[in-house]
Amino acid sequence: MTRIHNYYAGPAALPVEALEAANKELIEWAGTGMSVMETSHRSKEYDEVHNTTISLFKELIGLNDDWTVLLLQGGASTQFAMIPMNLLCDGRSADYILTGAWSQKALKEAKIAGTTRVAGTSEKDGVFLRIPKQDELDLDPNATYCHVTSNNTIFGTQWHVFPDTGNVPIVCDMSSDILSRKIDVSKFGLIYAGAQKNLGPSGVTLVAIRKDLLEKCNSGLYTMLSYKTHADKNSLYNTPPTFSIYMVGQVLKWLKGKGGVEAIEKENTEKAQMIYGTIKDNPSFFSTPIDPESGSHMNYVFRLPSEDLEKQFVAEGKDAGFVGLKGHRSVGGIRISAYNANGIDSVRDFVSFMKNFAQKNG
Amino acid sequence: MTRIHNYYAGPAALPVEALEAANKELIEWAGTGMSVMETSHRSKEYDEVHNTTISLFKELIGLNDDWTVLLLQGGASTQFAMIPMNLLCDGRSADYILTGAWSQKALKEAKIAGTTRVAGTSEKDGVFLRIPKQDELDLDPNATYCHVTSNNTIFGTQWHVFPDTGNVPIVCDMSSDILSRKIDVSKFGLIYAGAQKNLGPSGVTLVAIRKDLLEKCNSGLYTMLSYKTHADKNSLYNTPPTFSIYMVGQVLKWLKGKGGVEAIEKENTEKAQMIYGTIKDNPSFFSTPIDPESGSHMNYVFRLPSEDLEKQFVAEGKDAGFVGLKGHRSVGGIRISAYNANGIDSVRDFVSFMKNFAQKNG
Repeated sequence: MTRIHNYYAGPAALPVEALEAANKELIEWAGTGMSVMETSHRSKEYDEVHNTTISLFKELIGLNDDWTVLLLQGGASTQFAMIPMNLLCDGRSADYILTGAWSQKALKEAKIAGTTRVAGTSEKDGVFLRIPKQDELDLDPNATYCHVTSNNTIFGTQWHVFPDTGNVPIVCDMSSDILSRKIDVSKFGLIYAGAQKNLGPSGVTLVAIRKDLLEKCNSGLYTMLSYKTHADKNSLYNTPPTFSIYMVGQVLKWLKGKGGVEAIEKENTEKAQMIYGTIKDNPSFFSTPIDPESGSHMNYVFRLPSEDLEKQFVAEGKDAGFVGLKGHRSVGGIRISAYNANGIDSVRDFVSFMKNFAQKNG
Repeated sequence: MTRIHNYYAGPAALPVEALEAANKELIEWAGTGMSVMETSHRSKEYDEVHNTTISLFKELIGLNDDWTVLLLQGGASTQFAMIPMNLLCDGRSADYILTGAWSQKALKEAKIAGTTRVAGTSEKDGVFLRIPKQDELDLDPNATYCHVTSNNTIFGTQWHVFPDTGNVPIVCDMSSDILSRKIDVSKFGLIYAGAQKNLGPSGVTLVAIRKDLLEKCNSGLYTMLSYKTHADKNSLYNTPPTFSIYMVGQVLKWLKGKGGVEAIEKENTEKAQMIYGTIKDNPSFFSTPIDPESGSHMNYVFRLPSEDLEKQFVAEGKDAGFVGLKGHRSVGGIRISAYNANGIDSVRDFVSFMKNFAQKNG
């Protein structure tokens, strides 16, 4: 059998090179006579994996030594709680900009921890079809941070220009577009991402935090919920998810080999042009409810003329080797997720399939 | 190269059969054309992995439908906080029995959540060399639960008979001896274990909770820290650590194939007899500070006549293919961890090495 075109939203496609590297040494690794999964997290062999993964990530995203990178567990959903728990302090408030279900969930947890403000929202009739413009935002210049969801997997929107928050650091959920494009890290105070879209398998969450913010973190927290615990021990306070971290390392090596974030951004832009171009060129068959300036370069949400045709599109797509085409249950229609590991050739095949399907059924 | 004798305390040896099964299908799995790591946690293929792992675990440990099994992240250390957060309620107190560093850490987190009592401790001069006897315990009959650490990896002790806590359910950290022996589950209200010793790779934590306790859990918690969140969604509220869960499934299949807990308990007892027997038979060379009735059947802590000989033992052991022999940094000496996946033949080779070393250097 052959590898399929995997357009799942996450866990998602990984570079086959990363899987092949792992496959070669799954049972006997690095001359140790054991699997990386079986190795003590206190061994010098694992230490090398751990530290290489952190330093490659810092290099690729462009973080200097003002930043600490943590390798945690529990997904972005756990960060929704840990962020306000650690950072909401001194009686100050945090700003949240709402652009979809994930930012709403982040706000819900922050409300448990302390005072929050909604500094902007693109919600209309229960859906979020665009990214707010700068002049729509009502930012608190004294906020302890401003929370932004970089890319919205469910609705298929993405911040192409991050908001100007002045001196307030942006705390950003980049789960679904991290390392997919160049960013100006100076705007951010904390960047976090569940690994299972652009970084590796599920089970590890990367948190990059500026050291000056780390020092101001609240104390008296449960040990495992305090960023300081993990920062003090280089994310080895307790046993980290060693194999998931090893896989992230493999994916980062692949990305570096491809030319890093600059090279992958070019590919992702080209993929976006192909998919949005195909939608635009077939206006009687494909449509997207998304504001054109807000369209994600990771998750593509679109509709066909009828729900029956959408079902047929998913079924015929599967037969043609494309899986993960069904839209999120809360939105319907079609969604494909084309992350870093979904190559240009695969997307080219997919848009051919789109065009043929439109021609046959239009 | 060949597979080594892996006596690390955790992450630890896995059955080679489980690794081989994963290796065969790491890139193209179950006819899906992708890796299990790349598959959506909402796919029917992953659903099968998830539910099979849960049901195999329930079958092997002997839990009926009065219990819910959760697949969480963050290790036992996160459970140290989640347990009191969820279960310490109605102004009641929780009992903690201290038998080592892990139970001390569990108590520390519980103190943040509410009222606790130390119902027993075997601490003497900063170390824990035995398990307290029933008549030494000062149990609170109204405690909401009594926390026990089943096996103490650092000191090498184990509860061979769990305490009689009357109507108070035992909440038990079984991270380092789960599924290594038959237990009477009726004594327990919650059983938890980080996977990385007897269950699989690190990155997934199993929590089995009696449904009547689950219903009484506190509300108003952060979403990800509430057992109810995960129970309501069968541990699919957010993306679970899918590959780690898949590997646990492989390990459980292997255990079932071996004859389950009854068969493995026989092996573990035999391994313990070999190792403790060798120590006992060479009293001028090997010694253990551990109370003979409290000796762990998972982690074996012993000393040689001098620290120099201990260093030599570790070095020559490594040359002979045995790794992970060095004692925990807080205890010193030698420790080997022989979990379910460390076979009898390997332990036989190890005790031969012990005897030869004693003969040459005694």
